[in-house]
Amino acid sequence: MNLSQKIKSIIREVPDFPTPGVNFKDITPIFENPSLCQEIVEGFISALPNKPDAVIGIESRGFLFGFLLAYQLKVPFILARKAGKLPYKTVKAEYTLEYGSAAIEINEGSIHSGQNILIHDDLLATGGTASAAAQLVKMHKANVLAFTFLIELTFLKGRDKLQNYSNNIICLTQY
Amino acid sequence: MNLSQKIKSIIREVPDFPTPGVNFKDITPIFENPSLCQEIVEGFISALPNKPDAVIGIESRGFLFGFLLAYQLKVPFILARKAGKLPYKTVKAEYTLEYGSAAIEINEGSIHSGQNILIHDDLLATGGTASAAAQLVKMHKANVLAFTFLIELTFLKGRDKLQNYSNNIICLTQY
Repeated sequence: MNLSQKIKSIIREVPDFPTPGVNFKDITPIFENPSLCQEIVEGFISALPNKPDAVIGIESRGFLFGFLLAYQLKVPFILARKAGKLPYKTVKAEYTLEYGSAAIEINEGSIHSGQNILIHDDLLATGGTASAAAQLVKMHKANVLAFTFLIELTFLKGRDKLQNYSNNIICLTQY
Repeated sequence: MNLSQKIKSIIREVPDFPTPGVNFKDITPIFENPSLCQEIVEGFISALPNKPDAVIGIESRGFLFGFLLAYQLKVPFILARKAGKLPYKTVKAEYTLEYGSAAIEINEGSIHSGQNILIHDDLLATGGTASAAAQLVKMHKANVLAFTFLIELTFLKGRDKLQNYSNNIICLTQY
């Protein structure tokens, strides 16, 4: 099995979660499999075009492999949190949801002009959150080096929304 | 500087967050310091009495060093999430808050009888969440090998509540 097939064999599909009709991809069994976690980290790192200057991980499942990637690459890890959770001065980007909008924030001063930033989350769905993270990078006159996701839900076409920011969209498995 | 002093020098104290009178310890700058992160991981691992069979990390800041510890130790990482966030069958433990109660959950089948489990969170305050995680371990007839925290707020006496479960309570810095 290649890495994509291994990941799919471990992901648990849960019907009708969180709402009826949604077939939720439960990635939590991945974290209970240390050798697969190691292959995932190696898979992400080998797919990067260059070493980033920092990694942004999106709350909360994006904290997991996001911080691990930053740690392995020996670069800073920047937490992108839901609005109101970071206690100090923040920079915010909004994104639209099916009904209404939401926002993510990072600490002021975490990104520096000209840096190459890796954005990580577990799942690429509509691309709303990831493109908000990319906006945060652009607001600092920095570049999005790449996006990394464990899973891409291709029918939601999130990839189209991200190509404005970077052509390096790395997804280890697709549905 | 020793590790405790280094951590304190990087933590940002934010007055009156999230409510007036609370002097919040903002740990997010730690994650932007890769060499300190490496010392923290080494500090935790060297303080463990033995290698655990698995690590539980408590949502969401406990996911960060929790998963990193599991990864370095090559053992499964178990996510303890707020009630309702895990999509599949779960085991739940409640804990009391100042007003009311809350609960954390882990996936059913994640802990096995007789295992030695490490419980990780960023902060030891009243010990409510950590003791709920320890209850989850005990419900599976497993043992709490140790608790690891970045910070202990000693005036809240959380340590007293945890000593029912394990004498290995590892806190890298105290206030």
